[in-house]
Amino acid sequence: IHEDSAMENIVTEKKAEESHRQDSADLLIFILLLTLTILTIWLFKHRRFRFLHETGLAMIYGLLVGVVLRYGIHVPRDVSNVTLSCHVNASPATLLVNVSGKFYEYTLKGEISANEVNDVQDNEMLRKVTFDPEVFFNILLPPIIFHAGYSLKRRHFFRNMGSILAYAFLGTVISCFIIGLLMYGCVMLMKQVGQLDGDFFFTDCLFFGAIVSATDPVTVLAIFNELQVDVDLYALLFGESVLNDAVAVVLSSSIVAYQPEGDNSHTFEVMAMLKSFGIFLGVFSGSFALGVATGVVTFTKLRDFQLLETALFFLMSWSTFLLAEACGFTGVVAVLFCGITQAHYTYNNLSPESQDRTKQLFELLNFLAENFIFSYMGLTLFTFQNHVFNPMFIVGAFLAVFLGRAANIYPLSFLLNLGRRNKIRSNFQHMMMFAGLRGAMTFALSIRDTATYARQMMFSTTLLVVFFTVWICGGGTTQMLSCQRIRVGVDSDQDNSVSVSLMSIAEGSERRSTKQESAWLFRIWYNFDHNYLKPILTHSGPPLTATLPPCCGPLARFLTSPQAYEVRRQLKDDDSDLILTDGDINLTYGDITVSTDGSGTHTSGGPAFAGATSDDLDRELTYGDHELVMRGTRLVLPMDDSEPPFTDPHHRLRM
Amino acid sequence: IHEDSAMENIVTEKKAEESHRQDSADLLIFILLLTLTILTIWLFKHRRFRFLHETGLAMIYGLLVGVVLRYGIHVPRDVSNVTLSCHVNASPATLLVNVSGKFYEYTLKGEISANEVNDVQDNEMLRKVTFDPEVFFNILLPPIIFHAGYSLKRRHFFRNMGSILAYAFLGTVISCFIIGLLMYGCVMLMKQVGQLDGDFFFTDCLFFGAIVSATDPVTVLAIFNELQVDVDLYALLFGESVLNDAVAVVLSSSIVAYQPEGDNSHTFEVMAMLKSFGIFLGVFSGSFALGVATGVVTFTKLRDFQLLETALFFLMSWSTFLLAEACGFTGVVAVLFCGITQAHYTYNNLSPESQDRTKQLFELLNFLAENFIFSYMGLTLFTFQNHVFNPMFIVGAFLAVFLGRAANIYPLSFLLNLGRRNKIRSNFQHMMMFAGLRGAMTFALSIRDTATYARQMMFSTTLLVVFFTVWICGGGTTQMLSCQRIRVGVDSDQDNSVSVSLMSIAEGSERRSTKQESAWLFRIWYNFDHNYLKPILTHSGPPLTATLPPCCGPLARFLTSPQAYEVRRQLKDDDSDLILTDGDINLTYGDITVSTDGSGTHTSGGPAFAGATSDDLDRELTYGDHELVMRGTRLVLPMDDSEPPFTDPHHRLRM
Repeated sequence: IHEDSAMENIVTEKKAEESHRQDSADLLIFILLLTLTILTIWLFKHRRFRFLHETGLAMIYGLLVGVVLRYGIHVPRDVSNVTLSCHVNASPATLLVNVSGKFYEYTLKGEISANEVNDVQDNEMLRKVTFDPEVFFNILLPPIIFHAGYSLKRRHFFRNMGSILAYAFLGTVISCFIIGLLMYGCVMLMKQVGQLDGDFFFTDCLFFGAIVSATDPVTVLAIFNELQVDVDLYALLFGESVLNDAVAVVLSSSIVAYQPEGDNSHTFEVMAMLKSFGIFLGVFSGSFALGVATGVVTFTKLRDFQLLETALFFLMSWSTFLLAEACGFTGVVAVLFCGITQAHYTYNNLSPESQDRTKQLFELLNFLAENFIFSYMGLTLFTFQNHVFNPMFIVGAFLAVFLGRAANIYPLSFLLNLGRRNKIRSNFQHMMMFAGLRGAMTFALSIRDTATYARQMMFSTTLLVVFFTVWICGGGTTQMLSCQRIRVGVDSDQDNSVSVSLMSIAEGSERRSTKQESAWLFRIWYNFDHNYLKPILTHSGPPLTATLPPCCGPLARFLTSPQAYEVRRQLKDDDSDLILTDGDINLTYGDITVSTDGSGTHTSGGPAFAGATSDDLDRELTYGDHELVMRGTRLVLPMDDSEPPFTDPHHRLRM
Repeated sequence: IHEDSAMENIVTEKKAEESHRQDSADLLIFILLLTLTILTIWLFKHRRFRFLHETGLAMIYGLLVGVVLRYGIHVPRDVSNVTLSCHVNASPATLLVNVSGKFYEYTLKGEISANEVNDVQDNEMLRKVTFDPEVFFNILLPPIIFHAGYSLKRRHFFRNMGSILAYAFLGTVISCFIIGLLMYGCVMLMKQVGQLDGDFFFTDCLFFGAIVSATDPVTVLAIFNELQVDVDLYALLFGESVLNDAVAVVLSSSIVAYQPEGDNSHTFEVMAMLKSFGIFLGVFSGSFALGVATGVVTFTKLRDFQLLETALFFLMSWSTFLLAEACGFTGVVAVLFCGITQAHYTYNNLSPESQDRTKQLFELLNFLAENFIFSYMGLTLFTFQNHVFNPMFIVGAFLAVFLGRAANIYPLSFLLNLGRRNKIRSNFQHMMMFAGLRGAMTFALSIRDTATYARQMMFSTTLLVVFFTVWICGGGTTQMLSCQRIRVGVDSDQDNSVSVSLMSIAEGSERRSTKQESAWLFRIWYNFDHNYLKPILTHSGPPLTATLPPCCGPLARFLTSPQAYEVRRQLKDDDSDLILTDGDINLTYGDITVSTDGSGTHTSGGPAFAGATSDDLDRELTYGDHELVMRGTRLVLPMDDSEPPFTDPHHRLRM
């Protein structure tokens, strides 16, 4: 008996070893895919090819490897891997199997459709390269979303905040319902024709509408960055896409939560809809609050130990995500607002070295995660086992996605233009329409649940939508830009003051009106933020003793960090919201420092507009970054701008 | 029927959501543990407490949380989670279960001992915080090991290479067999007394010997770094611990591979032993070759795009690991030598910004992974389900570990001292004996397979060994240092030439003899490396046209990069092996640049030893880093040493 069990142990060990080796090989496939992508994209960048972005390339390589895995490699049938059918009347999460006296534990992996049962053992290898969908949500999406928030160009973002919020909230909801309704029509038609094999309810259609409403124009924005496209267009597109991911996630989970009472679970019911709406509001604001709360946390004393500081920053950001998920909120939304808040407050408290480290770390994580997701998308087109490609549904989906995007952009732009002085011109509208790419978020949402027939069909269709938009729309960006005659080569740092000669006086007055447009809400927020929040949360800004009324003196002294007095002169210069650079243009965004030494600096920097600026906020909106660069060069970092002798200028070119 | 299946889908979704929320909460526990550890360790560092290292602290917090999870939280019995027993006669990896016509797929999780069957459902929550052991090997260990290799202080390492190799290879094997034999005696005794419930063979004892022979003195080294302990002692201890991890991994896998032919599978057999020995050699050299091969890869042109460069570097390092694992070699060994090679060659080809980025990235990953493992260790003492604590075995193991370490250090030191001029003094020997901590590697090896009774007993015992050594030996390091009167406050950069006045002439002659000791093998390697490998693999060193005989002219011109000519003067200064700083002392290790402009620099730097140096290698061994610093200050980085005005000196203090 002893020998038997020993032999059995050896067999078990062998099996485990084999499985581990297979796991490594699978992971290696992806790593090599990414490596290949990086090398190719380097070549493209070197040669200045712009028709294919790294994410599109990652998808192509993923596709190729998927084809090879599916058709090229024949894995011999594993004899020891017999599949047993045992008839029971429930499907628990854990199953104990009694094999001649020994107990083995099994965990539920998922349902398999009856006609796939025979394939299971053949496709063991294919199924191994299929990741748990939760990996995307828990590991890969957080850094991408956080990076988006952390690198949001806040100055331009705030200038267009009203429009961005309208596109992101109203627009996404419109798009979701338009797509949902169109798809429901399509599904009805399919039922008539007899093309539908399973259930497909209106909530499923709406769910589909929600997931394909999350745009991800990473390809387009990369090109915008490289070509230095108009900053307002950039801000509109980037802001919209960042926020509508958040809206789409919460929307899709509210739709899933829609459950009317009683037996007839797929009819319309007001109470259930109100409940869903309540869930939407609750989850969104909860996630928002959580993210902001974490982002606001300050690490004051840790500056001495950069490694600890960076590690803590990383962990705090991740824990925001997990905390939100554990509370039943939406981690993606929380982490997005956490990123925005951290860039606004926490960033100022970090040591200069940690500022660099965190920027670079999240840039790298974002790059890796994004390309991983896109190459996985390519791979999964061939390796996913339960694809349901229905031609009618696919055609309907493409049409619905197109119309949904149009129903978002054009009517909203029309309405917004009624209020905006700086109109969103029609070529900008067309560009935004064209740039409605679908990407990582749409994919992650659709792969999260592929248990039912409806969801499988959605997943397969979503994949095709992503492929099409990334390749066709992404690849055609430069053509579209020149076709729409959109101004390129605008240096966002210099458009205000340095390249004064390039700008007409008309634009100067336009900027003045932009100020008025964004001011009404933003001005209140700005004053509150600058006078109270910044001094409490960071070491920058005026000490509270100066901004609070005299009666609050003790409180003010308690809340103001000692550093705010001690090193005030020094930190005033340090107090810049340098944010992530996602390209080789955009650099420094100072949006706080109200210099007390008068406007002498500004006049010397941009004499043409000296008259147009009247208050702190305005000066900041207009001159923020230039002012910083000026003072930075003068006082703070005298050596950073000069090249070390051994670095050629092109070495400093950022990707 | 439709309604039924719809309801079922909803239930499935609910279940999935609940499970996801639970996953997030579990991960959050660890993130918060790490956050807490960081905050506490910051306090300790701030107050200069040295009795507890961050890893020890992480374990304590882990323990506390483990206790709370085990005893504090009562999870209501999940009704839907009924466990079914179905009697079949095999345990396949995949199981299909037919539940009233629907097929569900289950995957094998592991064997459960008969008396644990009833606990399974109660402890669902505890089992959730238990990670798949492969996570440690595929995700957490690689960055730790790579970082060790990448940050190896090569100058001191090479100076003591002979001794380090002896301790690491011979010493680990000795320790493994001594512990194995002692444990076998202990097990025999336990059988006599009737304390043993399961099988425990001699190979199991040897396996235990192998896994507890991997030392991990991270705690001790951190203190060494902080106190600036003698560099030779540091090099011996660090080098030994880095390499013996590699040896222990390969040793343990060769022991597992020991399988005599025939029925009687636990007797001694020469052929099987030779086969195991062959496996050891094959796996080790295979991993070594793979690691070196990947490390040697050069990224020449990518310097323009730092993000791509860093991403590629990261992926290459990881793929080395996976490739080795997929080939059946040992990833840890491969990644270690990959790190050493990359620090030696690839590092020189990176752009300065990428050099910083990669250093900081791996520093961070190492920090996070290490503390995660240690806090998991603390947690798992209470949450692991199959602990087997056997008092006799534990006492025996502690004794064996102690004796095994002694049998490694003292006899080998005696033998080495016969050959060394720069003797390993007895206080160094005691310190090395004392610093035989067990850590991440031992833990990862022991948790990898806990299927059998013997392995479970080993795992539980190993945990206790790690706890004891990290807390007691780690905590007592400063006491031990002062008790053994080991010199502290030695600045490794300045001990050669800058702080000349502090050193006696006697030490000067000692250094000369060190040179002779290490020279015989190293000199050949050094010349080959400097004249041929460096020019081919990096842009540094003399062009091949200068070092190869004239007949090889065309080949030499083909292999030498154009940059080697163009920017030769520049790169000569750039050609420094600045490696990772793991503390606030240690800085720069130049070990290549043979300056052609005579020894004028050296004489000015260290006039006392001008006569002692006679050739390139020697000059480098003695003056390498100082020379670099000198030239660095003079030519290369004129601005890096001067503090930016807004940074206080203590802000630059590294952790």
